[in-house]
Amino acid sequence: VSLRTPTEFEAAFRAIGAARYHNLHPFHKLLHAGKLDRRQVQAWALNRYIYQSRIPIKDAIIVSRLPTPELRATWRVRIEDHDGTDGSDGGIARWLRLTDGLDLPRADVVSERLALPGTIFAADAYVHFTRERTVLEAVASSLTEMFAPTIIAERVQGMLAGYDFISKETLAYFGQRMTQAPRDADFALRYCTEHARTREEQDLCLKALEFKCSVLWSMLDVLYYAYVSPGHVPPGAFGS
Amino acid sequence: VSLRTPTEFEAAFRAIGAARYHNLHPFHKLLHAGKLDRRQVQAWALNRYIYQSRIPIKDAIIVSRLPTPELRATWRVRIEDHDGTDGSDGGIARWLRLTDGLDLPRADVVSERLALPGTIFAADAYVHFTRERTVLEAVASSLTEMFAPTIIAERVQGMLAGYDFISKETLAYFGQRMTQAPRDADFALRYCTEHARTREEQDLCLKALEFKCSVLWSMLDVLYYAYVSPGHVPPGAFGS
Repeated sequence: VSLRTPTEFEAAFRAIGAARYHNLHPFHKLLHAGKLDRRQVQAWALNRYIYQSRIPIKDAIIVSRLPTPELRATWRVRIEDHDGTDGSDGGIARWLRLTDGLDLPRADVVSERLALPGTIFAADAYVHFTRERTVLEAVASSLTEMFAPTIIAERVQGMLAGYDFISKETLAYFGQRMTQAPRDADFALRYCTEHARTREEQDLCLKALEFKCSVLWSMLDVLYYAYVSPGHVPPGAFGS
Repeated sequence: VSLRTPTEFEAAFRAIGAARYHNLHPFHKLLHAGKLDRRQVQAWALNRYIYQSRIPIKDAIIVSRLPTPELRATWRVRIEDHDGTDGSDGGIARWLRLTDGLDLPRADVVSERLALPGTIFAADAYVHFTRERTVLEAVASSLTEMFAPTIIAERVQGMLAGYDFISKETLAYFGQRMTQAPRDADFALRYCTEHARTREEQDLCLKALEFKCSVLWSMLDVLYYAYVSPGHVPPGAFGS
């Protein structure tokens, strides 16, 4: 079996997204269709904060493992995107505007004390993956961003239409991601195409994307189980 | 707030078990009551294998962090309990007798390729916890074994009565654990009582046990969601 051409390699990534990206998850369909109540949207925003909070950490790990000033400088921009220049103007701060808009006390959100354990395990698995696997796999695991613009467009439109407690202001996070995600995905895809020099390395990149899809999917599984199918909130979590 | 007495400290651990141990989980109640079908019991055994496989790894991490030959020798016995003297006669080999008895191909079990991502994230979170937290917290996280004998007795009796595809031979794993778990829990409780010298350190021990309960609980959440409530098996997992 020979090396995939760049076109074939990209198509293989896209096939994984078409089968496993979390826009296919039943929780997302409910969220975008305006079918959730306010408490369920609160639970989503509070738990998704955990994931947001781990993004600059995993990106800093990747920066720490890249070998040249040029590569590190390119990837470092991602840390800035999420932490901002001083902590108050990045993606995490914009996510907190959403949780503020949903009347979730910041202390509850930031302390993580009401989050589902399954959310924390999944988000931390992503951090550990970027530390323990090869840099190539760590970079490939970011490629879910290839599929982000579609889901974000759907989400913003669907949530504004479906929920009177959601405003454009509280969804500011997603506006930024519409330009950041494609820029980042282009770079990561180019990196994987250049650095995966054997079929086996290409396979590892595809497995890394599958892993990352399972992180995002699993976070919606635990939300659905705890807050949509009734009576399953685990001890100590939001709403228990 | 002052240091808890040994009696108060043990009572605080037991209160956590009474509220958060996985014998309270709806999946366990179904399992023990003979209410699951063969495929659901297969899914349980296949996913629980992931947890079993991580036990000697987390124990080796704890051994690597203990400071004296005496402490390491005591904890090393746990690695032997699960790996056996040569890999073929320990807890993991006994767990594979159960998956064999359920006609699950060993390659499917050992490769982990059909396991739920949420199971892997939870089991790996336990491994990472023993590496990243203090040794005291790592030891305290093992204290779910204080509550094991009750659940094991229930489980063996309930499963033998409820399922014609389960035999005493396939449940051999649990027989050994009835004596190993109390011996290990006694040692770990004594260790925590002696080494937690401030109220804050005692609190960290209690939090470690809460964390561990959430690992076990979360593994049953994902099983329930995927295999009891219909239509939720994630892409690529057993039965998808």
